[in-house]
This record gives sequence, C-alpha cells and structure tokens, in this order.
Amino acid sequence: MSLNRQPSISLAEIKITAGFWSGRVELIAKEVIPYQWEALNDTIPGAEPSHALENFRIAAGERTGEFHGMIFQDSDVAKWIEAASYSLATHPDADLGRKIDTVIGWMEKAQQPDGYLNTYFTVAKPEGRWKDFRSAHELYCAGHLMEAAVAYYEATGKRKLLDIMCRYADYIDSVIGPEPHKMRVYCGHPEIELALIKLYRATGVRRYLELSRYFIDERGKQPSFFTKEPGFSKSDPWFNLDYHQAHAPVRQQVTAEGHAVRAMYLYSAMADLALENSDETLVAGLKKLWENVTGRRMYITGGLGSQGYGERFTFDYDLPNDTAYAETCATIGLIFWAQRMFRLDPDRKYTDVMERALYNGALSGISLDGMSYFYVNPLEVFPEAAARRHDLEHVKPERRQWFGCACCPPNIARLIGSLGQYIYSREDERLYVHLYIGNEARFSMHGTPVSLKLQTDYPWDGRIILQVHPEQPVSFALGLRIPGWCRKFSLAINGAAVARPVLNGGYLFLEREWSAGDQVELVLDMPVELMQANPLVREDAGRVAIERGPLVYCLEETDNGANLPDISMSREAEFEVEYAPDLLGGITVIKGKAGRAVGDGWDNALYQPVNTHARLHDRFRPVTVTAIPYAFWGNRIPGEMLVWIRLNG
Amino acid sequence: MSLNRQPSISLAEIKITAGFWSGRVELIAKEVIPYQWEALNDTIPGAEPSHALENFRIAAGERTGEFHGMIFQDSDVAKWIEAASYSLATHPDADLGRKIDTVIGWMEKAQQPDGYLNTYFTVAKPEGRWKDFRSAHELYCAGHLMEAAVAYYEATGKRKLLDIMCRYADYIDSVIGPEPHKMRVYCGHPEIELALIKLYRATGVRRYLELSRYFIDERGKQPSFFTKEPGFSKSDPWFNLDYHQAHAPVRQQVTAEGHAVRAMYLYSAMADLALENSDETLVAGLKKLWENVTGRRMYITGGLGSQGYGERFTFDYDLPNDTAYAETCATIGLIFWAQRMFRLDPDRKYTDVMERALYNGALSGISLDGMSYFYVNPLEVFPEAAARRHDLEHVKPERRQWFGCACCPPNIARLIGSLGQYIYSREDERLYVHLYIGNEARFSMHGTPVSLKLQTDYPWDGRIILQVHPEQPVSFALGLRIPGWCRKFSLAINGAAVARPVLNGGYLFLEREWSAGDQVELVLDMPVELMQANPLVREDAGRVAIERGPLVYCLEETDNGANLPDISMSREAEFEVEYAPDLLGGITVIKGKAGRAVGDGWDNALYQPVNTHARLHDRFRPVTVTAIPYAFWGNRIPGEMLVWIRLNG
Repeated sequence: MSLNRQPSISLAEIKITAGFWSGRVELIAKEVIPYQWEALNDTIPGAEPSHALENFRIAAGERTGEFHGMIFQDSDVAKWIEAASYSLATHPDADLGRKIDTVIGWMEKAQQPDGYLNTYFTVAKPEGRWKDFRSAHELYCAGHLMEAAVAYYEATGKRKLLDIMCRYADYIDSVIGPEPHKMRVYCGHPEIELALIKLYRATGVRRYLELSRYFIDERGKQPSFFTKEPGFSKSDPWFNLDYHQAHAPVRQQVTAEGHAVRAMYLYSAMADLALENSDETLVAGLKKLWENVTGRRMYITGGLGSQGYGERFTFDYDLPNDTAYAETCATIGLIFWAQRMFRLDPDRKYTDVMERALYNGALSGISLDGMSYFYVNPLEVFPEAAARRHDLEHVKPERRQWFGCACCPPNIARLIGSLGQYIYSREDERLYVHLYIGNEARFSMHGTPVSLKLQTDYPWDGRIILQVHPEQPVSFALGLRIPGWCRKFSLAINGAAVARPVLNGGYLFLEREWSAGDQVELVLDMPVELMQANPLVREDAGRVAIERGPLVYCLEETDNGANLPDISMSREAEFEVEYAPDLLGGITVIKGKAGRAVGDGWDNALYQPVNTHARLHDRFRPVTVTAIPYAFWGNRIPGEMLVWIRLNG
Repeated sequence: MSLNRQPSISLAEIKITAGFWSGRVELIAKEVIPYQWEALNDTIPGAEPSHALENFRIAAGERTGEFHGMIFQDSDVAKWIEAASYSLATHPDADLGRKIDTVIGWMEKAQQPDGYLNTYFTVAKPEGRWKDFRSAHELYCAGHLMEAAVAYYEATGKRKLLDIMCRYADYIDSVIGPEPHKMRVYCGHPEIELALIKLYRATGVRRYLELSRYFIDERGKQPSFFTKEPGFSKSDPWFNLDYHQAHAPVRQQVTAEGHAVRAMYLYSAMADLALENSDETLVAGLKKLWENVTGRRMYITGGLGSQGYGERFTFDYDLPNDTAYAETCATIGLIFWAQRMFRLDPDRKYTDVMERALYNGALSGISLDGMSYFYVNPLEVFPEAAARRHDLEHVKPERRQWFGCACCPPNIARLIGSLGQYIYSREDERLYVHLYIGNEARFSMHGTPVSLKLQTDYPWDGRIILQVHPEQPVSFALGLRIPGWCRKFSLAINGAAVARPVLNGGYLFLEREWSAGDQVELVLDMPVELMQANPLVREDAGRVAIERGPLVYCLEETDNGANLPDISMSREAEFEVEYAPDLLGGITVIKGKAGRAVGDGWDNALYQPVNTHARLHDRFRPVTVTAIPYAFWGNRIPGEMLVWIRLNG
C-alpha cells in the first residue's frame, strides 16, 4: 500500500485555460455562482423557492419570519459558499467576496453561545436539537458548513467562518463521542466525517480527525441506535438501516447498500481516514466496496442508484435504464471517492471511473447555460412515460431551474469550480496527470518551481501536448494516465518517439531530468467503440452503448425521430465522427447506419406473427442515426433519449 | 347491428366431459370450492385469514365479535356462492347446498329491516352507511351478492337469496336515482350495473334494468360528486376520477382508463345494457373502447393493467413486462366483456380475445392443484428483483394460498365453474361454437331437442369432432369459429371434405338439415408461431413471443437455467412440438434452438467493448430452449419466467 499525504497542487496554481472545460469553469464563475446566489435568495422567476439565505438572516436576527425549506436547507448555502470559494481562488471577484462575508456575518450571529449552528433547529424547533440523528441532518449540515469554511479559508486566507466552524466542531466533540457522558451517535447522512478530515487538514487540530474516526468506527455497530429513532422502519428502503449504511460496521460492509449519495460520502471519508491513519483494514474494505460498486452496481455513465424509492442501490447487476435514479450528487460523490482511492492505491481503475463519472453522469446534471439541472440521470427517457407512469415519477425529461430539495445544483458547481484539483496528484518525486484538461499549472519539485502547460482538444481529440518549464533542470517522474478505453497510443518527447513505453497501474512514467521547454506529445487513439454490458445486466442484454474516448453517447429524438427503442444497429456498424461547431456549443457527433422498424402493415394490430404479410426482416428500413454525448442531452427540444441501443436481429 | 337476446344454453345442459378443461372443472367442484370454503372460514394453515364468513355470522347475530378484513370482504363470500352455484348446476352436492343455505340464513338475518345488507356497515360502522360511494364498495358488494343470488336461483330454483337481494335492490332503488329526493350517486367500483341486469333477466323486474341504466348514464357526468368524497385526489392515480371511470360520461370515454377490473365490469354492463335497450350510442362507444383495449393496452396473454400503482391502465402501447399488473380479475373481466361484445357484433375478434384471455392470463391465476393463486400476472419474472425492487412490490413469483384482498381466487373459480356458458351462443337459427372444449350439450332448435358432442384434444391438437344428434332432422346453421391464429384448416361433414368453406365474421357457417349421427370434423392447423408486438410497444422491440394455437408460451428457469434475458432466438428458428404426459399434468412443450451469452471473459468487468477479446458474436453458445404454456408457469420450483424472448443479432 502506498499512502500519499503529499498535498495536491493548490487550486490557485492551476488555471484551466482552454478547451472543453474552460468554458464550463468560466460559466460557473461568471454565471452559475451569481445565478445560484439569486436562487438561494428566491429571486429567480418560476424556480422553486429556496429560502435558504432567508433562514440564515432570520436565525441571525436580521429579519423576523419563519423557517422554510428542507430540514437540511442550510447545506445549500454551505455548498454554494464552497463553490464560490473555489471560484474566488481562480477568478477573484470583490463583490462575490463581500456577499460571502455578509452570509458569514449572519452565520456568526446565528451561532448559539455553545457553538451550535443550524437555522432549522434555531428558528423552527429549538427543542428538537440532537433528538433525531437518523433523519434530522444536523451533523450533515455541519459537515457542509465545515467544507465551506475550509474552502473559503484556503481561497482567501480569511478565518472567520473557519473559526465559527471550529467552535461548532469543538461543541459537537464535547457532546458526541464514545465517552460515557456523551451521546453515542452518528448522522443518518454521512458527510461530517469527510468534512472533519478537511477541517483537521486545514487546522492541524487532531481532535477533528479523531472525531471523524469515531463517527466512522461507530457507524453500523449493532444494535443500532437508529432503530429507536422516530420514523425508523426495519424494512422500508427509505427508512431502514442499510439505507443509512448502518446495517453493519463499515469494515464489514462488502456491498454498496442504501442511499447512493450517502454511501459515496461515507466511502470518501473512509478513504481519507485510511490515508491519514494508514488503516489497512479500511483500505481492504474500501477495495471490496469499489469492486462491488464499479463491477456490479454502476451505470455506464458513472450513475449510481438503481431505484428512485430510497434513491438507492438495490442488488448486483440491477441497472434498469428508464427507472434509474443515478442522482447527479451520487456521481459527484463517486468522483470524490475515486480520487481518494487513487491516493490509497495508485491505479487507473480509479481515475478511469473518475473520468467516466465526470464526463457523463456528473456533467449531465447541468445544462449548457448552467441555469438548469437534472437531479435524476436515467439512460433512457420517454417523456410520455415519465409524465404518466407512477414508477417514473422521479424522472424529469427536462432540467429544472431549481429544486425544493436543491442538493445537486450547488454540488455540480463546487465540482466544476474545483475541477483543477482533479487533474493532477503528487507523490514525492512524481506528478500524475489524470485528466487531459487544457491548463497551466505551477508546482515545485525538490524545491524547484516548475510550470506545466497542457494543451488538447480532448475529449474531441486524443492529441495532448505537455510543455514542462522548470526554473532549472530537475528530475522527476511524470505519470501520464493511459485511459482504460485507449488501446493504442503514441508518445514523443521533444519530437522523438518513445519506443516501448511501459505502463504501471495504467500510467506511463516518464522519469528524466526535465529542462525548460521540454515537450511531451501523447496521442491516444480514440475510435468509436460499441460497448456491451455484462450478460448478468438483464436490461442491457442484446444492446450496445456507443462510446468514444471518455464520452458515452446517446440518441436523442431531435436528431433521430420518435420511438428510439425501435432503432437497432449491427455490431459491424461503421461510424463517422463529425465535429459540429454550431451544435450545442460545438460537439463531436457520431453518425452510424442503423435499422428501424416500419410501422406499415400494423394498422390497429397489437400482435402479429413474424411471418404474416411482409416478414419482419423486410420491415427494417435503413437509417443513419446521430448520437451526441450523453452529458449534452436535454439541451434542445424536449424528447426521447436512449443510451443502450438494440443490436439488430 | 345484430342484437340477440336469445338465451344461451343453460349451464346444466352443458357437460364438460373430457380433455383440457374437464379436469379443471372437476377440480373446481371437488377441490377448489371446498378449499375456498375453508379459506373463507379461516381454517387454512398459513393462509392469510379472510374472516368473511365470520363477518356474516356476526352481522346475523349468531356470534359476537368485530368485523375484520377489507371493506368489501362480503364480495368474497358472494363470489364463492356464485362459483359454488355453477358447480351445483353441473355437480349436484347436497352438503354444499346445505352450506350455502346456512350462509343464506345468516344473510337473511343480517339484512336490515329496510333491506340493506352489508356486514362492514352493519357491524363496524353503522353511521357510515351511504357516505362514501367512491371507495366504500357498498354497491359493489350488493352487486356481487345479486350475481350470487341469480346463480344460486338458476342452479337450484331456490328463491330465498334472490328474494333477499330483490329487497336490497328495491331499497337501493328507493334511495338512489335521478329523482330530487334520492341520492344522485354511483359506485366507485362498477359491478352493480351488470348485476342488476342479471337480476332483471332472472326476475323480469324492469326497475332493476332501469336502475342499471341510471348508474351507467349518470357515471362520469361533470362535475363528479366524487370530488367531494373523502380521500379523493385530482391527480393521484389511485384516487382520481379516471381511476373510477368517472372522468367523462361513459359514451364519451374512448380510451380505457383507470383500474382495469373496474373498467371491465363497467364495459360488460354497458354491453348488456346496449343489448337490452338496443342502444346504438353505447355500442359505438364500446367498439371504440374495444379497439383501444385490444389494439393498444392489452398484454399478449390477455392481461390488462400496465401499472401496479392504481392497478390500472396507463397509456397506449405502454406494456412493460416485468412491472405489469395484469390482475387475474381484469382478464376474467375481459372475458365477460368479450362474450357480451359478441352478442352485439358477432365477430371472432371478440371471441379470439376471449379465448386468448381464458387460456393465458386468466388460467395463469390458479395453480394446477387449484389451491393457490396469482393476483398479478406479469410476463417476465425475476424473483430477486420481485423481492428487492420497490417498483415490483406487487409481483409475487409464487402463487399464494389466499390474499388479504382475495378478489381473484373466487373469481377464477366462478369463471371456470361456469365455463360451459362460454362455449356456445345462440341466435334464432344459429348455434355458434366459440370454444373447442370437449363437452356434451343439449338445446333445442325449432322445438326439436338436439344434443351435441364435441371431442377434441384442443389446445394440444387442432382436430375437433362434432357429433350432432337432433331427435328428428332439423335445419339450423352451425357456426364454427376459425380462430384468428389459424391460417389453414380443413373441414369434413360425414367424411366428405367441404371444398371452399366461406367465413363470415371469422365463423364458418354450416347451414343444413342435421340428422342424428351427423359428424363434423374440423382440423385447425396449429403450427408454432413467433409473434411480434407493434413497433410502438417499446418493451417488446426486437423480441418475439412463442404461440401455438390459443396458447402463449413462456420460458421457465426450471427448464432453461437462470438469467433468461440472455437467451436469444433466430426468427428462422425451428421448433419441435412434444407432448410430455408426465409434465405438469400433461402438456405440450415446444423446444427450439437458441443462443445464450457466455459469461466467460467477463470476470469482474461490468462493461466491455464488443470487440475486446473474443467478439460478442463468438460468445453465443447454442442451446435448446424449452417453452411451456404461460398459464402453467410457477407450478414447479420457483424461478425466473419470460414470455418475450430476444431475437438474436
């Protein structure tokens, strides 16, 4: 096991400069953060009201009024501050800083003398504090506020929110824990565990790490105190133990169970704790969970959660496409977890999944203009069914401006806002490049400042140019991820081809003394691939999904007409790859030959023998289908969407 | 329009003598009726208790105690009496008669002075009478008791229950109706409408027909009084207007909406009323509804109801196989309706559906031994998913001994018990033969007694022998249904082939003077057919179902191993038809070549390119699959079942 506590390159030192992501990152800073500020202030016409900032104003005594919103409404503000902080790190903005400081001012006033800070239990239900750990989300909200505090502190150096949250953490530590005079509890929604480790790393206060360890170790011990909390149900998948990952001690959990977002936040914290404590038993457990999630319970988009009821995992290979939940937040959580797993076990299997989740199931959560969001990300959408079938109640064929439960919009903002932190990771003498995102980064190796420039049209094209500029020649290893989807690549350093590059854990290591102006050119072959699912995935039997590079593609009604399930494709189908500069902001579309059923000869018949009239065989008409990247679907006229296409027979 | 009010041949005059159905009919009389008596008396170990007879004992003052069960528990007793009466007509049984008379004695005592009879509102909630027409099922229970009364009267000539129910009907007529002093209401669950017409036909009291017409004409007038009743919801598919077929006046309903059983009972009553009143507007509406149900909303098994939530119709071509509701009672209701539609419009399109429903989606409701029942009849079952997925909560992979809501078991008993009544229908000079069921029947034509003997191994074999024995030569037309599934047949009378028989509405009419000993031999070609669904049925795209004759076939895990969705079949597949005398009481199985995905090379992979390692193409291994009739599934080791099989590509 290689445990690596070397800090990553800080966000301020990484500028996403060009290409696929730069527009998105700009959008987050320039449009989305301001838009979400308006949403949290209830000033977006037609959007579901949030009241989240108003709750803080009221709790601070600046306004009178009542609490409104979800019991965890505070977390929306916290995630927005976190996202805004990442934005400030890369896009200084005095006005934004003032807004955040104003909110922090309310938080300071809303904080109770003992350190407690939660608008619901301050404004609406003071007598309810610490009474319902299973569902009241108090520690969850505390966790998000801690993450916000760390992000704001790291972006600005300002300590006020950090100090507020340290006081709150100290208070929590004084009332919860294994000691006899404390409450022996943990939160129904994991989150504070990973937040406390961030707080520990930012402050060096080891007590926060210890409290996180307590929460993780305590979780799932039987009998669970949850069984005595209000609303608990032994069997209902919304209210039972495994929904909360509390069915067994975490080291004994070998399958991913329950609410998918909760699971990802818990596993992320477990990975952080394993790293901090060199905890081999945790690492072993995490690897089993990783195999279970990515080998049996993950959509090809990186989506997690096969069922709307409980927003949760179900069982191995149960991956229905139309009823999928695949919450945006769960895929974001998978990215958090994957990044952390790589630090425990440097292997591309983690970063491959991180990339898959990022480019597909996470990015699909936000519209091209940044102003509307998917909560649920199914792989097949038929709007009439979504509107009319009860078991598809959770599926919305169009992104929404906001949600009554608005966890996803600020979550995708904080992810994209901090995207720079996912590109690289460092060990003592190594720099890993995980994601091929156009950027300029600065770091130091053996005390020598190095700047790095990565240029690429990835994911539309597989050519990547890396320029290395150390202030003076310095030796280190540059580890380039060769994605699992790539079966052929070429590499040149300063124009000279590297003959037989060797991969280690899926990374190609270039160990040399780097001099200013050294240039690495990596060309990843990026053909169209038809993907199949394991035969145990019943819903994908006899179907293929189109991928190119890290992108999963889909068919939309806009390009292909209605009734997409009647499209079928040969496994020998040939494809044309075509860059369409005017489509959806500029995307590469994939066109291929396919067949469609012909409706002629059916009239009002519902069932007919294959051999009646024309043979079924003669009833296919050849068509050219156009596929677009899954993450871009739903940005035009609302309609059907399909990822898994039938092989024709 | 040909309206035919000629009575059918009475049940006592038709003996189902041999072949496929005789064992089932015997089973109903000898085993099922006694078993269900025990179930209604709560004496079956392990079965859900009914309490239905106990409720009557209590209401009669024979016992003290509380009401238990569904608000419509009385209807289970009513349907049992109806089924038992049919049984008595064909299988005299003094002990059974005594049991029924005992129950009727309780009913007499339970009847209130004004005629009202309902154990729930007598024992449990007297103050609630006539307060909740939308959901309290009072008129529904009354309807089933009326059907029981008519059946018992017709089987035995005993009037006591008929008189009780006439008193109840008279009372209902005195308090409900269009007149200003009456309640202007109708029942949330249609049933009394068809029952009142039966009561009218049995008694000649025209007031009952008029009351039925009132209920039918009043239904769905807007604004509906349901909107003011407790528990009504405008949008919830369990509680809204269309759930109750109350969204529009019945003549304006052109699509089948809402709870499928309710819809079938309503349409059956509408067909009866149209016949009695020669009501062309009703007939026109019914034909539209028929086209909608059978052309867009019916499973290939005759199953109805695409959604568990609301046990209801959803929208055109929405026919998911695994989440199907397809309640046994709804398919039985479709049989009721189809038989009545034929009387309005003599065409095999109705009797084809009647036969499809009978041999598949209705018969599947009862186990081979008659002692366990399916409520829900999906076309694809994966037990692990049924156990673990919330959206499959309604799917039970095994038949149950009884149900808390036990509408289906006595319903299938009354259907099979009265099966003789579905074989023939009469017009003045015509006898239609709809179903090829081995039987001996007696009727008269122009005053001449005729006996008819039908011998066949149908549905295992397409050869049918009909012997006609009039007491003296008599002319009439014998109309033989040539099923829609049959593309080739031959016909001989007394050994002489009939050269070019002409079909009329799908029936072949033999008009001649019949003499004693005349013999008709009809041979229906009965090959294995692969059926496809209309391309708008998304769930069946690229799939085929195996049919032979009237039987839909399915694959079971027991014969074919687990993971049935990985089986695929060529449209050119050849089949062997094999009678297996020792299997499931003797059935014809169908064996065919198919392919299965090979799990090798997957290890822990969830997704792989088609072209990795071995090609997908090389990963099929040839297998022989064995299909059994759908109605027989679930009678062996519990496991997977599949109707729609993938075409391979």
